[in-house]
Amino acid sequence: MAIIMGDNQYGKAENRVVRIYRDTARHEIRDLNVSTSLRGPFSPAHVEGDQSMLLPTDTQKNTAFAYAKEKGVGSIEDYALALARHFVHDIGPVEGARIEVEEYAWQRAVVDGVEHDHTWTRRGPEVRTAAVTVDATGEYVIGGIKDLVILKSTGSEFAGFFTDGYTTLEETHDRVMATSLVAKWRFTTTELDWEATYASITAIIVREFATLQSLALQQTLFHIGKAVLEAHPEIAEMRLSAPNKHHFVVDLEPFGLDNPGEVFFAADRPYGLIQATVTRDDAPPANEAWRSAAGLA
Amino acid sequence: MAIIMGDNQYGKAENRVVRIYRDTARHEIRDLNVSTSLRGPFSPAHVEGDQSMLLPTDTQKNTAFAYAKEKGVGSIEDYALALARHFVHDIGPVEGARIEVEEYAWQRAVVDGVEHDHTWTRRGPEVRTAAVTVDATGEYVIGGIKDLVILKSTGSEFAGFFTDGYTTLEETHDRVMATSLVAKWRFTTTELDWEATYASITAIIVREFATLQSLALQQTLFHIGKAVLEAHPEIAEMRLSAPNKHHFVVDLEPFGLDNPGEVFFAADRPYGLIQATVTRDDAPPANEAWRSAAGLA
Amino acid sequence: MAIIMGDNQYGKAENRVVRIYRDTARHEIRDLNVSTSLRGPFSPAHVEGDQSMLLPTDTQKNTAFAYAKEKGVGSIEDYALALARHFVHDIGPVEGARIEVEEYAWQRAVVDGVEHDHTWTRRGPEVRTAAVTVDATGEYVIGGIKDLVILKSTGSEFAGFFTDGYTTLEETHDRVMATSLVAKWRFTTTELDWEATYASITAIIVREFATLQSLALQQTLFHIGKAVLEAHPEIAEMRLSAPNKHHFVVDLEPFGLDNPGEVFFAADRPYGLIQATVTRDDAPPANEAWRSAAGLA
Amino acid sequence: MAIIMGDNQYGKAENRVVRIYRDTARHEIRDLNVSTSLRGPFSPAHVEGDQSMLLPTDTQKNTAFAYAKEKGVGSIEDYALALARHFVHDIGPVEGARIEVEEYAWQRAVVDGVEHDHTWTRRGPEVRTAAVTVDATGEYVIGGIKDLVILKSTGSEFAGFFTDGYTTLEETHDRVMATSLVAKWRFTTTELDWEATYASITAIIVREFATLQSLALQQTLFHIGKAVLEAHPEIAEMRLSAPNKHHFVVDLEPFGLDNPGEVFFAADRPYGLIQATVTRDDAPPANEAWRSAAGLA
Repeated sequence: MAIIMGDNQYGKAENRVVRIYRDTARHEIRDLNVSTSLRGPFSPAHVEGDQSMLLPTDTQKNTAFAYAKEKGVGSIEDYALALARHFVHDIGPVEGARIEVEEYAWQRAVVDGVEHDHTWTRRGPEVRTAAVTVDATGEYVIGGIKDLVILKSTGSEFAGFFTDGYTTLEETHDRVMATSLVAKWRFTTTELDWEATYASITAIIVREFATLQSLALQQTLFHIGKAVLEAHPEIAEMRLSAPNKHHFVVDLEPFGLDNPGEVFFAADRPYGLIQATVTRDDAPPANEAWRSAAGLA
Repeated sequence: MAIIMGDNQYGKAENRVVRIYRDTARHEIRDLNVSTSLRGPFSPAHVEGDQSMLLPTDTQKNTAFAYAKEKGVGSIEDYALALARHFVHDIGPVEGARIEVEEYAWQRAVVDGVEHDHTWTRRGPEVRTAAVTVDATGEYVIGGIKDLVILKSTGSEFAGFFTDGYTTLEETHDRVMATSLVAKWRFTTTELDWEATYASITAIIVREFATLQSLALQQTLFHIGKAVLEAHPEIAEMRLSAPNKHHFVVDLEPFGLDNPGEVFFAADRPYGLIQATVTRDDAPPANEAWRSAAGLA
Repeated sequence: MAIIMGDNQYGKAENRVVRIYRDTARHEIRDLNVSTSLRGPFSPAHVEGDQSMLLPTDTQKNTAFAYAKEKGVGSIEDYALALARHFVHDIGPVEGARIEVEEYAWQRAVVDGVEHDHTWTRRGPEVRTAAVTVDATGEYVIGGIKDLVILKSTGSEFAGFFTDGYTTLEETHDRVMATSLVAKWRFTTTELDWEATYASITAIIVREFATLQSLALQQTLFHIGKAVLEAHPEIAEMRLSAPNKHHFVVDLEPFGLDNPGEVFFAADRPYGLIQATVTRDDAPPANEAWRSAAGLA
Repeated sequence: MAIIMGDNQYGKAENRVVRIYRDTARHEIRDLNVSTSLRGPFSPAHVEGDQSMLLPTDTQKNTAFAYAKEKGVGSIEDYALALARHFVHDIGPVEGARIEVEEYAWQRAVVDGVEHDHTWTRRGPEVRTAAVTVDATGEYVIGGIKDLVILKSTGSEFAGFFTDGYTTLEETHDRVMATSLVAKWRFTTTELDWEATYASITAIIVREFATLQSLALQQTLFHIGKAVLEAHPEIAEMRLSAPNKHHFVVDLEPFGLDNPGEVFFAADRPYGLIQATVTRDDAPPANEAWRSAAGLA
């Protein structure tokens, strides 16, 4: 029996890269949070403290900033692919790279009805995400969105559930349903109009959430995933993680008031947490990186 | 010499009140965070533990929810005024009440190009605020906005400043300027179209930030305040607190790249913090509550 | 009528200054978060963008770091006094300075029963605070602690309170009482053994919270303040702000279980918020900075 | 080709369960954050909205609170095992359960040199964690700690690393090393003195961090893992995730001051992030839940 190194990776997390395009008077902005991770023959660094194979995390940071100039940020998927390929192909010891990017959205300021050339306000809370892995087995791109806070004030039910001796919940056929959605989708290609695809997917998410008469948050998640996969053959799988942000009807009867779904208490904790994968029966098998991506641990 | 009670207040903080209007198929939503504070003859509660004058914070919470039904939430200023008046006029011992409200914005979901009747997504990060004080001296309404994150990629300078032996900063005539603005404005009236006023003020803030060739963040703040006061005679004073969210030009020269204002590192801490009051030379004197509202402590 | 500048200040916030003393093999650490604010004739900077009187916030940052070497960090009160005096006395235009410092506590690692010379673990969540103001009227030192999370599982009641038509709360004579205390105390001196004083005050806070049979959180706050003022003649006033971190007894009766104060739900929001000042009837009058320090706005 | 459900689970997250033991005058407190997740034949809930197999998350919450009374909280590992077994064995449709628990530490208040019977202050920031999975393949227990913030002011180097054209970092043979450690360890048993084991592991972590002359954070992580595995044959693997919380030496030379490792700027972002697994060459294979537990995605 011996004690040995297992899986490991290292990198620079949360590089806050802001790229301004100022070739014309109408500037553009891309606002990123970039994390890099490298994998390879790094056991000597761990066991003996021999760094000769280790590219410093400081160098990874420098590269992330330099690539925002050299390669630009046309889309975060392409930017992350360029970084990952560089580390794997150009840096001798590196065998695998995983690049994770968050992109913060800005909307152009409107002044006297006209969009301004070089001023924006932040738009959120939703954040676009990408995670790219490049290694000897291939190139993997996962797109995503997180913290998309969405609420419907009717069109949601929860009834007919399993009960036991600890069940006190009452059935409802009309409730507020709200979540802060995290979704990730696995592409089967590395060549795509990433911007159009992102816009399409987020529109489908919102449409399905709004229009499905929901019998449970689970059902809403599946139908979001199904609609996205139907519209996007280049997506093999979608993973969704959705806190059920409970809005409890306040009992106003002690004060002589009725409350037919008008006044709610928005609770913080605990919250339901629903996690689901929607896939195709002929999807190419996912690697471990993907399987763990939705946190189904 | 004796040890005595000084200023005090108590209440229920951060009641998360959500009000849905569902009188027609097109629902409306108001999403609030409500904090109440009461002042009065509460020394016996502190000194001897005699609660006979204390309206429980739990009761204040109940009232905040009940009033969302009884009085509705036409605007947060009116809702807060109604609550404050109730506590002062209807609850025997209470001499003063301060109600603070944050309102979270939602935008209607768009499905196939059409606004949806009962689904919204959260819009932020900016939050609308109101603080109302009612006591024997009168009624005071303070409107505000916080966490308005705004950035301009040019049109900002910083030069000609005072220097000493600890100064290493270089002058610049073209930089990114960004902040997360907190602004509060003191009304001289309690009767107003609060919704239209809020929309007007936020538009002016964005316009001035965008269009002023800024020699310092200080100058931008003053001219925002000036423009708001010029447009709104019902506002006596405006207080602004603005972190200078530094975006540092990254030195790419070691990598053979120039960087003419294209790639920036967005820093977290430390940050400049600029706080300013813009007022009128004939403004009615502010009470202490207002003076401390911008944190000029 | 003219629109004019009112109160204003500016500085560098949240400088994360860490000072290691390594004169002997047994090192010492002081871990600070330092914010500086300057006041003076800064209207031209705001109105016309004339920075000639403005010492850059970047310079203030440099000074905060340099002073950690030049003056050291024997105590945060002395360090803040040194910085404030420097800005007011050495920098021509500056008329007033306010320095706020948070200090994070570390405890020495223990290895095989022995304290280690140069390794520590962070201790919290409580944070020591100081706020120093120097201007033409004098020098003011405010000490404090924040985020002191403290809980007692018995010895707390709440009964005999005022009721109205919105009251549903039941009386209790045995409850969990918990808070996350923020306390500030105003010194009447600038020469003191700050370390011993801080240790004494925090011990008194914990003792009073623990030993008083509390009829309300208000009563606990007053008696903390009273005990501190009795023990420390150099303190004129104490301000306390205490969220009532509600621990609700869970109703286990539906499951055939009794629950005599054994299982609680720790709620997040809303929470009671109790704010109190304890002072002396012959205390020197506080300036505005102090009055607003406890947030009684 | 058909669109189908893949992996899924659902539950109630972040139940804030506080358990007081008050059988004698000297009370005890256990303060938990409990999250439950259930797995099973839940496709109908997703595809058709048929909840008949779904035990509500509200019921899971009730069970978490009831079990704090019925089974008690002797240790979080045993409490989580009891909950997981209940869901799998007692609730017909459930095939697998994962229970995650965080435990917040409290230390007894000391009054006049004596430990108090029923008052505590929170101790942190470190948090003890446990994750238990029960399913048809067996029972799995993962212990852990997170947010253990630890710093050494000397005894850390970084030199001899791989360089490329983006490398600007200089070598150092004496630096501050600090991290906020997250560690998880996989047990090969479900019967253990969990309290003693946790105390032993955390002591080893601190000892190794303090005493190893570290050539890289990677080396420190491996030697922590190695020492824990050597001391604990009942642990098969340890996963460590360690942000390198950079403390940069401040350049004070422009101000005529030297700075031999005395004044540091503690940076927020970006940070190095080192993730490592230490295992045995004859360790039983880990299931996916474990492999993803350290975030090596």
